[in-house]
Amino acid sequence: MKFNFEFNRYSPREEELYGTILTLGNGHIGLRGEIELEPTIYGTTVAGIYDYAPYFYREIVNAPRVIGLQMMFSGEPLNLSTHKLSRYERELNIEEGTLKTWVHMETHKGVKIQYESLRIVHGKRKNLIILKFKFQASKGGLLTLVNPIETDVANPSYRPEIMVKHCSLKELYFDEKSIYAEVRTLDERYNIGIGSSLITEEKVERSVIKSSRGIAEVLSLQVRPNKVYEFVKYVVISSKNDENLKEEVLGELKEAVGLGFGKLYEEHREYWNDIWKKAKIEIEGDDEAEKGLNFSLFHLIQSLPRDSNISLTARGIHGFGYRGHVFWDTEIYALPFFIAVFPEDARRMLMYRYRNLESAKENAKLNGYDGAQFPWESADDGYEATPSLVPLDMAGKEVVRIYTGEEEHHITADIAYTVDLYYKFTRDEEFMSKYGLEIILETARFWASRVELDEKRGYVIRRVIGPDEYHEHVDNSFFTNLMAKHNLLLGVAYFKKALELGGEWMETIKRAGVDEEEVRGWFQVAERIYIPRQVEGVFEEFDGYFELEDYNLDPYGIGEARLPEEIRKRIGKTRLIKQADVIAAQYLLKEQFDLETIKKNFDYYIVRTTHASSLSMPAYSIVASWLDYGDLAYDYFMKCAYIDLKNIYGNTHDGFHLATAGGVWQALFRGFCGIDIKEDMIEISPKLPQKWKSVKLRFFFRGAWIDLVIKNNEIKVKLLNELKSVRVYAFGKEVVLGPGEEVTLEK
Amino acid sequence: MKFNFEFNRYSPREEELYGTILTLGNGHIGLRGEIELEPTIYGTTVAGIYDYAPYFYREIVNAPRVIGLQMMFSGEPLNLSTHKLSRYERELNIEEGTLKTWVHMETHKGVKIQYESLRIVHGKRKNLIILKFKFQASKGGLLTLVNPIETDVANPSYRPEIMVKHCSLKELYFDEKSIYAEVRTLDERYNIGIGSSLITEEKVERSVIKSSRGIAEVLSLQVRPNKVYEFVKYVVISSKNDENLKEEVLGELKEAVGLGFGKLYEEHREYWNDIWKKAKIEIEGDDEAEKGLNFSLFHLIQSLPRDSNISLTARGIHGFGYRGHVFWDTEIYALPFFIAVFPEDARRMLMYRYRNLESAKENAKLNGYDGAQFPWESADDGYEATPSLVPLDMAGKEVVRIYTGEEEHHITADIAYTVDLYYKFTRDEEFMSKYGLEIILETARFWASRVELDEKRGYVIRRVIGPDEYHEHVDNSFFTNLMAKHNLLLGVAYFKKALELGGEWMETIKRAGVDEEEVRGWFQVAERIYIPRQVEGVFEEFDGYFELEDYNLDPYGIGEARLPEEIRKRIGKTRLIKQADVIAAQYLLKEQFDLETIKKNFDYYIVRTTHASSLSMPAYSIVASWLDYGDLAYDYFMKCAYIDLKNIYGNTHDGFHLATAGGVWQALFRGFCGIDIKEDMIEISPKLPQKWKSVKLRFFFRGAWIDLVIKNNEIKVKLLNELKSVRVYAFGKEVVLGPGEEVTLEK
Repeated sequence: MKFNFEFNRYSPREEELYGTILTLGNGHIGLRGEIELEPTIYGTTVAGIYDYAPYFYREIVNAPRVIGLQMMFSGEPLNLSTHKLSRYERELNIEEGTLKTWVHMETHKGVKIQYESLRIVHGKRKNLIILKFKFQASKGGLLTLVNPIETDVANPSYRPEIMVKHCSLKELYFDEKSIYAEVRTLDERYNIGIGSSLITEEKVERSVIKSSRGIAEVLSLQVRPNKVYEFVKYVVISSKNDENLKEEVLGELKEAVGLGFGKLYEEHREYWNDIWKKAKIEIEGDDEAEKGLNFSLFHLIQSLPRDSNISLTARGIHGFGYRGHVFWDTEIYALPFFIAVFPEDARRMLMYRYRNLESAKENAKLNGYDGAQFPWESADDGYEATPSLVPLDMAGKEVVRIYTGEEEHHITADIAYTVDLYYKFTRDEEFMSKYGLEIILETARFWASRVELDEKRGYVIRRVIGPDEYHEHVDNSFFTNLMAKHNLLLGVAYFKKALELGGEWMETIKRAGVDEEEVRGWFQVAERIYIPRQVEGVFEEFDGYFELEDYNLDPYGIGEARLPEEIRKRIGKTRLIKQADVIAAQYLLKEQFDLETIKKNFDYYIVRTTHASSLSMPAYSIVASWLDYGDLAYDYFMKCAYIDLKNIYGNTHDGFHLATAGGVWQALFRGFCGIDIKEDMIEISPKLPQKWKSVKLRFFFRGAWIDLVIKNNEIKVKLLNELKSVRVYAFGKEVVLGPGEEVTLEK
Repeated sequence: MKFNFEFNRYSPREEELYGTILTLGNGHIGLRGEIELEPTIYGTTVAGIYDYAPYFYREIVNAPRVIGLQMMFSGEPLNLSTHKLSRYERELNIEEGTLKTWVHMETHKGVKIQYESLRIVHGKRKNLIILKFKFQASKGGLLTLVNPIETDVANPSYRPEIMVKHCSLKELYFDEKSIYAEVRTLDERYNIGIGSSLITEEKVERSVIKSSRGIAEVLSLQVRPNKVYEFVKYVVISSKNDENLKEEVLGELKEAVGLGFGKLYEEHREYWNDIWKKAKIEIEGDDEAEKGLNFSLFHLIQSLPRDSNISLTARGIHGFGYRGHVFWDTEIYALPFFIAVFPEDARRMLMYRYRNLESAKENAKLNGYDGAQFPWESADDGYEATPSLVPLDMAGKEVVRIYTGEEEHHITADIAYTVDLYYKFTRDEEFMSKYGLEIILETARFWASRVELDEKRGYVIRRVIGPDEYHEHVDNSFFTNLMAKHNLLLGVAYFKKALELGGEWMETIKRAGVDEEEVRGWFQVAERIYIPRQVEGVFEEFDGYFELEDYNLDPYGIGEARLPEEIRKRIGKTRLIKQADVIAAQYLLKEQFDLETIKKNFDYYIVRTTHASSLSMPAYSIVASWLDYGDLAYDYFMKCAYIDLKNIYGNTHDGFHLATAGGVWQALFRGFCGIDIKEDMIEISPKLPQKWKSVKLRFFFRGAWIDLVIKNNEIKVKLLNELKSVRVYAFGKEVVLGPGEEVTLEK
């Protein structure tokens, strides 16, 4: 599956957009898609490397740029802006995880140059990047190639004109075959060692240059007319905190060079082949939908860190948007895909939360609560990383006050929800008994301390922000209260389960210091948590929401730009909402509502939602499917699947919208395919868009791979693994499949 | 007079230091001395171009780098770090205002390269920079020269790792002979247009490259072994706010190229020759002192802006120290030199204050006072530019609170003092009647509102910081109260003068709305201003100072590093002072004190002064001369004359210490030469250091140039101009000189 882009010129602005779309990554290294031949502010991202930053606590570090390549031909630097370009083309192959580039240009002296490159961020060798390229000129001349490690990189800060250099240079080194640069973050927590070698079979002269900008090796050779010259640039990036970092990096580099491009490319293709065996979704009858969906999955998969010191970030390894922080986006929007398709990855993402449970406990204590309160924005250390102020002007005199870090408490319940979801799919006893259980207990404990008793209404939760961030300092957010209740009841249920199962489960109960009395308290709070009033079936988003000024919108529109200026200014005083909120709760806790209630709420809120958040449409798409609003469900699905390819929110240059990418998968899985897990049974009630003939997908359920081919009137299910059985329910029929069995259910 | 520096390697750290020492400027353009062949963060400064910045209000802009030059030889970029350097030498010629560079290196391929350049920031053509260079190689090969305009520059902010890009790119353009870049400051107030051409008589191939880093022209040519190739790089920088900026810049560039290097160099030498005719000081018997002194004057002269939208800044055009802000340094330390040697320049510096009188009036109003209160730190718009907070850590969580902007009020009196000093030297009626008078009236008015009546002590001034900034929020600073009194009495005296002279003087009185009653009030306040108590002849620096813990120091030491840690921590609670304070007042208002009192105060404070401010030693040197503390006077003088050449304060990379440079001149003029202006008479009582045989200098006094050759027992005075006469008093004798007359006074 290839995504091809042809450009009729080189434009730094367009490069920034395609830089996101053409990003390659392997969970350790993230490499944006800007062309190697021109400068850019974007270096490389290395998963989990953060540093202190003005206003944003800690941010993902723009590490040295390693992909750069400068070419000179007979004394003339080859430049995309001033040379005549007859071809400039890029091609992202998501099946192989490669980026190809073609540049044909004519120099000022009339020499025709052809350049072609293939870029890989290696799947199986997490530290390795390869750039293979070919060069051809219509006349003979002196070709000079500069292969730099550019250490003088910086992160754009609260304004793009303010740059923060997180990497301080520790060492520049070279030997006869390689160059090496080592940097350390300013907080002295992380080292990054980078080695590179530019290899060719041609006879070349080699020299090395060093400066405050980094180190570079320079090859030069006389080329003959029309002969194709081939080169391979190898880069190894390691962030191991090790005294022998340099030796390790140079050793790995040597090994890679020794294996050569062919072998390494083969390994890399195997890697992606294995991934797509699990992840690929085929949509018969709608190539566009299929491409957009798998493109989203590709970027989601690439962005997932290999280590649990960081989880999936809001804008991935694709940019600096939201500073590489982890939000509820990760658990609620992205994680379900990993739970169903890459459960080991999902586990690691949850382990990130577990590793930061102590920080969350400190956070709760700091705010006067018990248990664990997860931060709204989380970086590498799990402390609250939400800025409380962001300057609007250069001098920092005008600032916008951000309350989400102080008030958007639902994230704590969202994490507990997803821990439970993971267990529902996987029955991973080891994770749940040791780690997941503790998260659920500590978060339940948080909510028990977070509520306040109101004589009339029971337990209320005051001063929060729900998913709809237009309304701050609200009391009794429907979403928050419902999720808090769910969290408390999970605490109760898993405590009981632990008592039954004993062993590791009981160890965790003891470690958390939870006893029956405390859990009884949770149950009482849960039972009496106040849920906002319902008027004609519609739940009030928070106390007083129905008293606000009303304003209606076309559900097919997106964003705030379509609003009159005066409405935009006082948006928090209207009933307009930023994104799915009551509906998001109903999509997460579907079993608590009948379809009629969901419909009433959907009909009410859909015309009051601006979708200014990219998290909005996925939730509405799913629920729209359930309600048979097929057109709207499909419209949202397609917008989400093409959110970055079409730069729908205008900020794709800041990174990929990974919550939306995960949301697209959920819109397919839970919406169009209508798949629900009810205890140990898989329920399927398809609502495929009209032009879709079938959807072919695969997911992992309690140790077994389940292959599905879904049509609106027929479902083929196959259980792949041995030693398992599974119950499937569709079209009013229930079947039990044994290992290797296949069954077709018809309407 | 040449300053030669030989290096045995290329070191970015040392470059930063010599970058300041080797700065060239012409009052419009400032160009630091870093070598053109390597990258550096320093671009170019253009006088008066400021922009909003985090914390520092507005700061001087690091404009595009224009001096850069990259060379490649046969495909090998020539690099000072990795190539073998057999010679790396720089030479600053202050008599001609040129910087020469020699680089001899051997490439990896064994080719010996000789490079030699001469750099000029043209004296007579304010927008012009020229770099002439020669290239020679021991073997034949392909030479490529890249002449870039690097627009991707930024200012280091409150931490060097945080960079602020003030220049947004507006246009990159090229034609057959030149390249052009235009940038605009982020606040949209200033445009900078830059054109450049690299010219040679050799046959070369030329191409142009553009990128997000700027634009560059590239010349390449085949060179023969051992032949010397010559090139001239011309650069024109204009900051005119003009629609035709590009046309003007390219026109000026064309004109320069047309005139050629020889003619332009001649003009430039004429320019400096004229300057040195006025400014040069010869010290017979002490070459080292002569060199250091004239070196200081060279940098002072280069730094003075040509336009009155900015004045001389604390660290000149040499760096970003103090963000290009203007302090009291300018009036009290630097201006006396310009008053005596370049009175038209001095006038322009005072016009800067006059232009910002409205801002100073707004500032006073904002703080609840009348009249004009000049800001402690001033940028291009005359508003208070002192940061009130400066972060200590990256995240901005720990900050240091700066009170000088709120409390260091003496600057307002300092400016009035220097306006009067200017008039005393020049009798510039036009300036004084129109502008100077208004400054004096509005500042007197400020002080009348600033004082508070204390029943017992008369008028007190509470909560200030004096020159000694270790002590904040003090009441009745000796320096401040005395200078305030002086300012009020100047108001009274000039008001009377205006009544007598009428005309333009009275227009100004009317414009300021000052009447006799108000002036009577000023007189009453001045008469009753409380001056801190005197104990055994020593004035208390401020109320309560004598009650502080005492600590004594060696007067020959400098800085705080020599203090024990525990003293440093509580320095504000001790009697240690940062710089001359009581003594600074006595040096400025010498006529109010007898020598015996000055001696008592000097003896007391000299052993309690850390000299942590570079403004301290000049004042002490002058007073030490008066008191016949010859060794100490000389020691301070020499330290000040070599303050940056020897990097005495360890922060020369931040810019030149211009207050000290001005102070060195004053230490010579007022200290060693003992020159005082008493109404229309010049009094001279020399105190030359023992090894000095004579001092030869020249200054301008009320329309006449006065040539002096001073020895300790003999003074030769010559009056150069016609139509003037002057009274001179020395060794107990008074003479009157007519035009062209010369007289020798003997002890």
